[in-house]
Amino acid sequence: MGPRSLAGMADTADRFPSDVYRQRLQRAAELTAQAGVDALIVGTGPDFRYLTGSTADTFERLTALVVPAGGDPRVVTAKLELAALRESAIGDLELSVTDWVDGQDPYRLAMDGLRNDARIAVSDSLPALHLIPLAARTSTPPELATDILRELRMIKDDAELDALRRAGAAIDRVHARMGEFLRPGRTEAAVAADIDAAIRAEGHTGAEFIIVGSGPNGADPHHEQSDRVISVDDIVVIDIGGPVSPGYNSDSTRTYCFAPPRRDITDAYAVLERAQAAAVAAVRPGVTAESIDAAARQVLVDAGLGDRFIHRTGHGIGLSVHEEPYIVEGNTDVLREGMAFSVEPGVYVTGDWGARIEDIVIVTADGCEPVNTRPHGLVQLS
Amino acid sequence: MGPRSLAGMADTADRFPSDVYRQRLQRAAELTAQAGVDALIVGTGPDFRYLTGSTADTFERLTALVVPAGGDPRVVTAKLELAALRESAIGDLELSVTDWVDGQDPYRLAMDGLRNDARIAVSDSLPALHLIPLAARTSTPPELATDILRELRMIKDDAELDALRRAGAAIDRVHARMGEFLRPGRTEAAVAADIDAAIRAEGHTGAEFIIVGSGPNGADPHHEQSDRVISVDDIVVIDIGGPVSPGYNSDSTRTYCFAPPRRDITDAYAVLERAQAAAVAAVRPGVTAESIDAAARQVLVDAGLGDRFIHRTGHGIGLSVHEEPYIVEGNTDVLREGMAFSVEPGVYVTGDWGARIEDIVIVTADGCEPVNTRPHGLVQLS
Repeated sequence: MGPRSLAGMADTADRFPSDVYRQRLQRAAELTAQAGVDALIVGTGPDFRYLTGSTADTFERLTALVVPAGGDPRVVTAKLELAALRESAIGDLELSVTDWVDGQDPYRLAMDGLRNDARIAVSDSLPALHLIPLAARTSTPPELATDILRELRMIKDDAELDALRRAGAAIDRVHARMGEFLRPGRTEAAVAADIDAAIRAEGHTGAEFIIVGSGPNGADPHHEQSDRVISVDDIVVIDIGGPVSPGYNSDSTRTYCFAPPRRDITDAYAVLERAQAAAVAAVRPGVTAESIDAAARQVLVDAGLGDRFIHRTGHGIGLSVHEEPYIVEGNTDVLREGMAFSVEPGVYVTGDWGARIEDIVIVTADGCEPVNTRPHGLVQLS
Repeated sequence: MGPRSLAGMADTADRFPSDVYRQRLQRAAELTAQAGVDALIVGTGPDFRYLTGSTADTFERLTALVVPAGGDPRVVTAKLELAALRESAIGDLELSVTDWVDGQDPYRLAMDGLRNDARIAVSDSLPALHLIPLAARTSTPPELATDILRELRMIKDDAELDALRRAGAAIDRVHARMGEFLRPGRTEAAVAADIDAAIRAEGHTGAEFIIVGSGPNGADPHHEQSDRVISVDDIVVIDIGGPVSPGYNSDSTRTYCFAPPRRDITDAYAVLERAQAAAVAAVRPGVTAESIDAAARQVLVDAGLGDRFIHRTGHGIGLSVHEEPYIVEGNTDVLREGMAFSVEPGVYVTGDWGARIEDIVIVTADGCEPVNTRPHGLVQLS
């Protein structure tokens, strides 16, 4: 074990050029200093990938990026994870890497050079397994790095926006092909398997989630898929997405049917369509995140459907499918150009049917740009 | 939102009968009280599955089982996760379930009834995102529930041991078929895809990890697979496993070749075989976990190969592929009947080759029972 450098490793992995990460790390250190925090400690996960380009994924052995407010970023990792870091920008940027072997104390290495009352901020996915021993090394309660990194991660740069647009176009192509997969008489699981293949075929590196909610299952926003056989009378919610290189996600929902739906359904769906459009129309720099939620919700409330809409209106998206800004009551964060998030109100009638319309939108200088462009109506497949 | 019960839901999911969980919860509450802790707070993950049978997997919205030292266990969950809990024992056991919707504070609900200096213990996979706001509600630093639950999870009952034996037999059948998949001229990735299918075909519900480390890639213990084309001169490490119902994992490594290997390789491999056997022979109740690591390591050290063995000798296994007890220097935990763990020393020569032999063993009254029974020698495939 000892500090070493991974310099000279190839710059060919599923990530942006190394300069992108150099700038992000520099900005992260500045924001850390501005927040009065002594160091960010970022375990593997989306924040780690954002700052280093590494897709390393470790659980019980600590791998962490330490970004001191005033010093050079460094990496602590188990010796046997070193190879997994090779593809990242850590080598090109010549970050110091300290490796450890089983039996050594990685928490001491991570906290090296920090005072015993240091203010540390940790990535939100860091498990208790690591956070508790780290926290024991400082008398100041740790905080979430999210509060610092949000400034970086929430505002997408051009390359990130390009990736989100590519992801949006890719998932739109899958929705455009839905008639190939979604038919009465098939199980939700069989439909999902075909959608999985299509998500990959249309340019994603994998599927992150596939919701096929038919009939009463559509009334559960987090239903995934089941062996339920789809009926010709069903309303079917299809909510799908996954990453395109280098890791930016799509996420789009459309609702389908096979026969003209009941009148109460078309009526409620028309309200939902107006709610989604109202929320999108409200998006622009300077308004709060919660105001977008309110814009969608008010339309449903006015139509007596307020209690049918049981979740927030949206979530930020990027390297994570769910990230800041959350479009939810209570979030007074102000929208800024370059943010990207979902607008996805739904209507859920327990035991009967559900519907949701979801697009990802990018905040522009004077409004927003949806990256999904499929029609919003209830799609009747023949 | 309000307390409710999921009673009356079907008892047909991928788990043990509900009585198993009733007993585990009761024992968890007793151990919590014995430890002087006021409540366990268990987020979704292996501990949650162990205690409730639920495979729910949530990240940003808190779902947690709260086990107070002196009261009834209860569950806090986001309303839209309720359906995911239906398959678990939570309904049959009539646990109180408090659901919340976006915008509400789930941490207040989780800490309900606890003093503001309560000692809480949290599951090791609970992310910082949830741990930090929970920790802010008590003046006593949280601890890891692992230290309490290990008493339960480390000692497997008969049904768990049966599942581990079924898992061991299933992965042995995959190794027995290795000649069908592993051939020179194929890529590691192609071999891994075939192994993936075989892992399922032989009775697993899925593959959890597939390491195909050929030639120099075998020298990286955490290499997974690549587009490298396997050569007739390669030594190939195959480390594979996955869960069988209800969630218990297999994990076994064998090392393969296609032609008689170099003399230095057969010599080192013979030492490795002795090291693995020495560690297995040392397993019995009453000895420390670290003594098993030392038994394997000493054989390699004596043969001048100590610095080629760069990881611990093993890890517990059950619902998690890696869990307590860890077979590593510094772990003075005493082995007891019913524990299950891997014994997997390896030899790694950077840039050249590697080998590993891994069996899962169950500690018996006077020794141990390996659940894997494939021959330990370097397997030459024709």
